[in-house]
Amino acid sequence: MSTPHSTPLGVAVIGYAFMGKAHSAAWRNVSAYFDVPEVEQTVLVGRDAEKVAAAAQKFGWKESGTDWRAVLERDDVHIVDVCTPGILHHEIVLAALAAGKHVIVEKPLANTVAEAQEMSDAFEAARTNGQHAIVNFNYRRVPALAVAKRLVDEGRLGAIRHVRISYLQDWLSDPASPMTWRLRREQAGSGALGDLGSHAVDLVLHLTGERIDSLTGGVHTFVSQRPTTDGALEAVTVDDAAWATARLSGGGIVQLEVSRAALGKKNGLALEIYGELGSLSFDLENLNELHFFDSRDAAGEQGFRRILVTEAGHPYVGNWWPDGHIIGWEHTFVHQFAEFLTSIRDGTESQPSLADGLRVQRALAAVERSAAAGGSSVTL
Amino acid sequence: MSTPHSTPLGVAVIGYAFMGKAHSAAWRNVSAYFDVPEVEQTVLVGRDAEKVAAAAQKFGWKESGTDWRAVLERDDVHIVDVCTPGILHHEIVLAALAAGKHVIVEKPLANTVAEAQEMSDAFEAARTNGQHAIVNFNYRRVPALAVAKRLVDEGRLGAIRHVRISYLQDWLSDPASPMTWRLRREQAGSGALGDLGSHAVDLVLHLTGERIDSLTGGVHTFVSQRPTTDGALEAVTVDDAAWATARLSGGGIVQLEVSRAALGKKNGLALEIYGELGSLSFDLENLNELHFFDSRDAAGEQGFRRILVTEAGHPYVGNWWPDGHIIGWEHTFVHQFAEFLTSIRDGTESQPSLADGLRVQRALAAVERSAAAGGSSVTL
Amino acid sequence: MSTPHSTPLGVAVIGYAFMGKAHSAAWRNVSAYFDVPEVEQTVLVGRDAEKVAAAAQKFGWKESGTDWRAVLERDDVHIVDVCTPGILHHEIVLAALAAGKHVIVEKPLANTVAEAQEMSDAFEAARTNGQHAIVNFNYRRVPALAVAKRLVDEGRLGAIRHVRISYLQDWLSDPASPMTWRLRREQAGSGALGDLGSHAVDLVLHLTGERIDSLTGGVHTFVSQRPTTDGALEAVTVDDAAWATARLSGGGIVQLEVSRAALGKKNGLALEIYGELGSLSFDLENLNELHFFDSRDAAGEQGFRRILVTEAGHPYVGNWWPDGHIIGWEHTFVHQFAEFLTSIRDGTESQPSLADGLRVQRALAAVERSAAAGGSSVTL
Amino acid sequence: MSTPHSTPLGVAVIGYAFMGKAHSAAWRNVSAYFDVPEVEQTVLVGRDAEKVAAAAQKFGWKESGTDWRAVLERDDVHIVDVCTPGILHHEIVLAALAAGKHVIVEKPLANTVAEAQEMSDAFEAARTNGQHAIVNFNYRRVPALAVAKRLVDEGRLGAIRHVRISYLQDWLSDPASPMTWRLRREQAGSGALGDLGSHAVDLVLHLTGERIDSLTGGVHTFVSQRPTTDGALEAVTVDDAAWATARLSGGGIVQLEVSRAALGKKNGLALEIYGELGSLSFDLENLNELHFFDSRDAAGEQGFRRILVTEAGHPYVGNWWPDGHIIGWEHTFVHQFAEFLTSIRDGTESQPSLADGLRVQRALAAVERSAAAGGSSVTL
Repeated sequence: MSTPHSTPLGVAVIGYAFMGKAHSAAWRNVSAYFDVPEVEQTVLVGRDAEKVAAAAQKFGWKESGTDWRAVLERDDVHIVDVCTPGILHHEIVLAALAAGKHVIVEKPLANTVAEAQEMSDAFEAARTNGQHAIVNFNYRRVPALAVAKRLVDEGRLGAIRHVRISYLQDWLSDPASPMTWRLRREQAGSGALGDLGSHAVDLVLHLTGERIDSLTGGVHTFVSQRPTTDGALEAVTVDDAAWATARLSGGGIVQLEVSRAALGKKNGLALEIYGELGSLSFDLENLNELHFFDSRDAAGEQGFRRILVTEAGHPYVGNWWPDGHIIGWEHTFVHQFAEFLTSIRDGTESQPSLADGLRVQRALAAVERSAAAGGSSVTL
Repeated sequence: MSTPHSTPLGVAVIGYAFMGKAHSAAWRNVSAYFDVPEVEQTVLVGRDAEKVAAAAQKFGWKESGTDWRAVLERDDVHIVDVCTPGILHHEIVLAALAAGKHVIVEKPLANTVAEAQEMSDAFEAARTNGQHAIVNFNYRRVPALAVAKRLVDEGRLGAIRHVRISYLQDWLSDPASPMTWRLRREQAGSGALGDLGSHAVDLVLHLTGERIDSLTGGVHTFVSQRPTTDGALEAVTVDDAAWATARLSGGGIVQLEVSRAALGKKNGLALEIYGELGSLSFDLENLNELHFFDSRDAAGEQGFRRILVTEAGHPYVGNWWPDGHIIGWEHTFVHQFAEFLTSIRDGTESQPSLADGLRVQRALAAVERSAAAGGSSVTL
Repeated sequence: MSTPHSTPLGVAVIGYAFMGKAHSAAWRNVSAYFDVPEVEQTVLVGRDAEKVAAAAQKFGWKESGTDWRAVLERDDVHIVDVCTPGILHHEIVLAALAAGKHVIVEKPLANTVAEAQEMSDAFEAARTNGQHAIVNFNYRRVPALAVAKRLVDEGRLGAIRHVRISYLQDWLSDPASPMTWRLRREQAGSGALGDLGSHAVDLVLHLTGERIDSLTGGVHTFVSQRPTTDGALEAVTVDDAAWATARLSGGGIVQLEVSRAALGKKNGLALEIYGELGSLSFDLENLNELHFFDSRDAAGEQGFRRILVTEAGHPYVGNWWPDGHIIGWEHTFVHQFAEFLTSIRDGTESQPSLADGLRVQRALAAVERSAAAGGSSVTL
Repeated sequence: MSTPHSTPLGVAVIGYAFMGKAHSAAWRNVSAYFDVPEVEQTVLVGRDAEKVAAAAQKFGWKESGTDWRAVLERDDVHIVDVCTPGILHHEIVLAALAAGKHVIVEKPLANTVAEAQEMSDAFEAARTNGQHAIVNFNYRRVPALAVAKRLVDEGRLGAIRHVRISYLQDWLSDPASPMTWRLRREQAGSGALGDLGSHAVDLVLHLTGERIDSLTGGVHTFVSQRPTTDGALEAVTVDDAAWATARLSGGGIVQLEVSRAALGKKNGLALEIYGELGSLSFDLENLNELHFFDSRDAAGEQGFRRILVTEAGHPYVGNWWPDGHIIGWEHTFVHQFAEFLTSIRDGTESQPSLADGLRVQRALAAVERSAAAGGSSVTL
């Protein structure tokens, strides 16, 4: 895999539900907007042969399959893109790396720190073989957040004092919502903490460029039993909500909260960063906007500026449509894969790395550790 | 063409610039989200052989071509999708209809009422042959506006008193912006009036379900000469801005304004409808939101409700992602084509019809007529 | 009256309803926030002796009275502040000027252009006697709009292309709302046109510093009869809504609309100004905010900046509370009276002048003239 | 004091800076808007004879004085309103209660729990004597928050899951901002925690009607030294920011954060409450608005409703102006005093009580205790 690819890069996506559909869309469209190495939608893999075949046809795949191990042995598959439930990430990623494949894995990287560590270590070895791997923290690729990152990196915010981030949904607000595998700890690892908290933690670390030194945190389950399809009640074994207050290596304070029981919020990832020189705010429900306060604006004219991040000069978005034409949520996957393909072509480091996934996992574990200790401070 | 299609519906898109790219995206993706007859991206047509070939490859077309007349003769082309400058709409659409093809044509339908009338008449004949045709007023397919339409149709707004609509951009705000064919009357027909005003007029008519009885209007060009590529100055022969006040058949008042010189507005289509029982507002820069005021809410609790139109039960959008995951501008093309393909399959009337395009053209012409008469009232 | 006042300036307010209450509040409080000549709440005048006495006590007046002519003869009354229905403005203002008093009169200045002309002329004579007079276009004194004015005056907007202004309320939306004197032409002069349109026209002229050269306009009454207190139906003889499109002397286009039947809008005065170099927007329902787009901000960082106009350095507002503590609607009256008292003390010209009131009246009359002529263009 | 007052209630305000000015405004205006017992602005008290005399004249007081103890002995003073720095609250309030006066004291009630306890106990004794006392948590009297309280009390939110509250300012963001007494612990008690956190905690307890069972918290000082007027650097001994995560007695989670170093926020008190049936949000920078999500709205039409709390039927605000005319920050003091005067007249319990002030003090102390213990959970 260390030599330039003379043929199209063949892609296999494992999983065909929500994430499989979103990843398929990105593979189908990335070449139409970005100058990337040629890719081929080689095979879509799932457990149910009939359903995965139907999905493959809908989503533009040449073939479908049910045996991910067999797919790893194919020479025409160069990229393995893991969209399964978290419980399978560890096994598939290790096998794919061993098979010499490039790897994309959905977030969170794994269900435990130990798994994540092993996966990250395995990649460090594979990297010397020219392989690439990323954890799909796709919100880094929201154009407005890419602008945010640039402003922070350029020192426009100065020292960061406060980060306030919340990721709130409401699909578990109703106690009558049914039981699913996502609410069983052995399958999902955790609840809102892993699902939503992993995005939030990655954004904090990525955007600030700092480390979390310590945190206090907690988790809570509002609805402890939910109806199964046969009408019985089953215990919910993951959290509905989680939170933390963390200290950044640069001295800033992070308040973080995630919930699937915040009625009225559908996919509300709200972020505020307050620095000594500038401040930012962002909301995923209006993902094309970034609000920027610049203390160097003239006195009397200062205020949060609503930047509609849809201009030709803005990151990613100029590849789509003329100024002012907004993009949607799934476009972030296209951007992520474009970055990934570009780094493969150029032999540069692919990001977000599995090490990034590991450090997120450590922070999530620290929240659970703090919670178990009654909210005591935990050092990372 | 009047019998059910046993083979995939072959599509030819004529034009590969902004609109060609957007239409290609919709053809490439429609089947992944909607249950529609099978389609094939048969051929992309443009004048420059090399460029159209490159575009065809990027955008997923099997072939490219430079001769649209030849394409009309192909048996494997069933849908002709016209994305050329307005000056060519009339000729291509008439020819495509004569060749028995289904037709999609970008807005505005034509550069003159006479052309539009002829095209609409031609389709009335072709319709008996089982052909389908639409003008691509894609904003009808914004989910939030589809909800707006439903609320109006259900009587939730009551009698409509005021419609306020503006479509504001700023790409011509700077006098140094260069001359383009869009600023030459003989090629573009008109300026902001046709480009933006056609959308605005169609939305007013579509959403209210009423007619415009009369209007007063005007047009204006702020920058009368612009630099050409060779540095000379060329006269701008279209409007930068246009406006009208119109009376609806139901007694309501419409204030409409469009401009390409409204600094700070990138693609700002803002709509307000005030009815006797309810009111609505919408902005294309946040196209996933509809604001609804319901006078039947309890006293003391009334207010504009921000509906994030991203739920499974909302029109179109449930076919994409879970609640709260916003879609972008180009998704409206997917929805439009899904509706079109469905109407072909079901043999129902396709909309927006060429007759809809004609009535918009008449309103735009009335604005110019009123403008020429110093703003006098003009009856439609 | 032409010499400096050695005693407190005695104030008489004529009228004790909505406007009388608001003006009383401003007289009661102006000295607490602004360094102005000493004033005394000398007398509150109304027709109903008992009610005006009660109001006078509530609102802090030393006395009440029912005879405004007698009040004009008092030596301890220096300022006559007219808060009556429009039909009385002309008579009282002329008499007050003749009696050598300073005058404040509510907007609109008069019910007809002829009255307004006579009042303005009368003041031109009185002015040489050291008298001062203003029409109370209080929205000029919203701090955010004072900042807007400063930005325009400093050239930050450049040439103005578009002004969009609407003033929308909904208290007449319901057809069951009862008849009042405000809906009778002989008493109120006009409806939304004079009541709301006068504010809108004054703001356009004041903020742009330009003239209206010509306009087309219209008026409409949605509910033509309303129930009286005895249950009968009485004809409404004023407009519910009015609109105009005007050409400014500098070449800009104004779209203006006012209504008392825009359901969901309580006191929505929305203003947008688009210039060649900068743009502004404002909404009276959030009157502490001004949104400013500056084309000289760095590329990629441009956007409308939400300036919370509550800082020490902002006009007027620094006299109230620390940064960020918002003020309310009636504070604009305090600012207006502070300006008025200061101009009396300093012998400078008081504004908004009766001539300003006259030019607004002319524009309103032009709207009615255009409406009567079926919307034809009218030159001012 | 236990018998009905036959004379006006004489008021003494101690302190004439920011709070003294705001309280003066409320005393000067309360009778103009609310039917309350007659009050008299008897005396304004401060340390600097000349300055307090000037302030008294500006703010409408009959007299000024420098000796608060002497004022407590006056028979014509019935209400003592304490606007001094926190360090004096304890002594003055105890003395005023001992002198048989009604008492208003600014928040936070005291600098320590012990002081607050003693003050609350003293009032319990005085209460039997017919005396009244409140801590001025004025934000309870924001009309929008009074509506919020009503909705919660009526069960419209159901069980409360999440409360998110932040109170962010930026006047200490700049490290060059000078030293003041507010940054010395011995005088101010604490920093943002007491000043802003007391408001936040009171709102949480008041609005939910629940207790805080336990919390984890922290405090931080970003700028540890600041320049004094003589150019030297002095150590800052209070916090710039504080935060807590608290568990409500009903099972909900509170995330709270306050800061004076959140650049771009001037007076941003943002509140969100998520319940099982409904949710609310509010921002003090737009204090006339309440956003309410009602899960019982029809499916597909749900969303946060922007209620402009300015209608005749809304609490307090109907006493001011017609619908849609917004009020400002200081109006909350008028509402508070109207409630206080009404409770004195009616002999009902005055609120917010000193016991309310004490429980807030306990929560603030718990935050400091948790902070001192490295963020461990503290039971209240």
